[in-house]
Amino acid sequence: MTNHIQNANETESQVISFAEAFELINPHLYTVEERIRAQAKSFDPAVEGYVSYVCGAGGKRLRPALALLSAGATGKITASHVDLAVILELIHIATLVHDDIMDGAELRRDQASANAKWGNAITVLLGDCLFAHALRLSTNFSNSDICRRIADAASEVCSGEIIQTQRRHDLKLSTADYYRIIEMKTAALFTAACELGAFISEASPTVIGSLKTYGTKLGVAYQIYDDILDLAGNEDESGKTLGTDLQKGKFTLPVLLMLQSGKDVGELREILLNEDSERAEALTQMLREAGTIDAAKKIAERLIGECLEQLNGIQDNRYARGLRSIPEHLRHLLSKL
Amino acid sequence: MTNHIQNANETESQVISFAEAFELINPHLYTVEERIRAQAKSFDPAVEGYVSYVCGAGGKRLRPALALLSAGATGKITASHVDLAVILELIHIATLVHDDIMDGAELRRDQASANAKWGNAITVLLGDCLFAHALRLSTNFSNSDICRRIADAASEVCSGEIIQTQRRHDLKLSTADYYRIIEMKTAALFTAACELGAFISEASPTVIGSLKTYGTKLGVAYQIYDDILDLAGNEDESGKTLGTDLQKGKFTLPVLLMLQSGKDVGELREILLNEDSERAEALTQMLREAGTIDAAKKIAERLIGECLEQLNGIQDNRYARGLRSIPEHLRHLLSKL
Repeated sequence: MTNHIQNANETESQVISFAEAFELINPHLYTVEERIRAQAKSFDPAVEGYVSYVCGAGGKRLRPALALLSAGATGKITASHVDLAVILELIHIATLVHDDIMDGAELRRDQASANAKWGNAITVLLGDCLFAHALRLSTNFSNSDICRRIADAASEVCSGEIIQTQRRHDLKLSTADYYRIIEMKTAALFTAACELGAFISEASPTVIGSLKTYGTKLGVAYQIYDDILDLAGNEDESGKTLGTDLQKGKFTLPVLLMLQSGKDVGELREILLNEDSERAEALTQMLREAGTIDAAKKIAERLIGECLEQLNGIQDNRYARGLRSIPEHLRHLLSKL
Repeated sequence: MTNHIQNANETESQVISFAEAFELINPHLYTVEERIRAQAKSFDPAVEGYVSYVCGAGGKRLRPALALLSAGATGKITASHVDLAVILELIHIATLVHDDIMDGAELRRDQASANAKWGNAITVLLGDCLFAHALRLSTNFSNSDICRRIADAASEVCSGEIIQTQRRHDLKLSTADYYRIIEMKTAALFTAACELGAFISEASPTVIGSLKTYGTKLGVAYQIYDDILDLAGNEDESGKTLGTDLQKGKFTLPVLLMLQSGKDVGELREILLNEDSERAEALTQMLREAGTIDAAKKIAERLIGECLEQLNGIQDNRYARGLRSIPEHLRHLLSKL
């Protein structure tokens, strides 16, 4: 009995928090940050300022963190892992730059968006430059499989975004379509970060496969959370403008679950098709009453469980515990919605 | 004497026309065309239609032709050369797709532009998809130098376009700036086509260098020609809408030469800054009188001469003659302006 309690305590002490996970890889993340900021210098002086602005805007650097933790969980964090982290974040930045054009967004991370600052023409090209540059950097890997995998992930992100844009305002969008879209547009870079982090460490195919699946499940769960946040979150707490998906005609999981529920959805359809942002609260209320916000949360929680299961076959170390802390943190965030 | 005439005839018969050069590589160009059209199938079914539309729109396929002729001039045209041709054309198509957004163009090669058909949001993403896909294909080269060189060229094209966009309406743009911009935005892919065509054939560094310079000079001369055409061409003959650079605030060589001439340019500045498209004819007249259209033609002709000189060190064969025919054809087009 004593023994059992001891074991439980030992297990307890092995759990590290989300903040501790970032702490663990902090020196490497610092290098990644420096490297991202330094990329501007490899552009023509006339272009440098633009690149420097969008690369210096900060961000959660979640993709670099996943690459570095996957690296540490499967071996030593090397310069190649740092390269991978930089490249994936640059691709992410390029897609954000283009996203802001499409959404007509004025702000990005508390500073004027590139399109608000310089107009759409320069911003389209700026995203292209970052994109080409990131893929150029990826050709430095001696193993061209890595480069190919990165280009594939980039292509998947863009394809996912196309499908999402194409299906705006589409009441016939199924939950299967939704999962496919978010797996492409969000999870593709999470997947590549974890898979390639392990691949560069020369982990076994089984371990690479587990981390790949971990990345995909985490990415999908994260996007479901972010979509629920947009519907049901608190603006002050989340620090972002919410309710924007409704305005953009982006139908997310709680909405789709209600549309498919077979219940009377006349009023829901009306709100959705009128993009009536003043009725965002009524929409949230309706979804809460129908139970589809809770249902979407359950789906995300199930994915988080499956994501954590992938780590069971990975040898335990601090970085593996760091990987564990990310879905755990997401579970905590979900519980607050 | 008879001998001399015979030699002259022999030399004469070795000259091939622009049309004959394309004829020479026609089977390979056909494969390139098929491959370009087939690319759509490697995308998600939801994205395929968009890719298929922009890839099937045709075009001069000048970059593929340069890659194939450079290949034939330095060895045998191989599957790798065809890959190169496909990749460079896909990058070119991606940049055209984004150009049309920036210019708000309604038509592209006699069909509705992608942005006119599906709006800017989808079109930004479509360009990104093509771009990522082209760079993905380039990772199939076993030599990663080729892949890197292609990504560099793509990055250069985008940087050149950024600088051009940034310097619109800028009366302080120098001719040096202009050359730099067109060397990046237009010549970079010409250069890569010729250089890599020879590189894949494992030509000597000298030959690779000569073809690289040939591509750059040709690209710059071609853009100067295209810019003069916009000012002084005939719409019916050229089959395109002219006078658009003035409207976009793009100051090209004849304009810049006049601005730098030290002559009284008050009226010129007024037309340029008012973007008064109705005064396009007055602008052309003014530039003709100032002699700067002729001066720009002379500069392009000099570049064509330098471009042809690069071929002197290349062993003569039908493909080398095909390469010769391209600047010669450009010289002919220039003479008609």
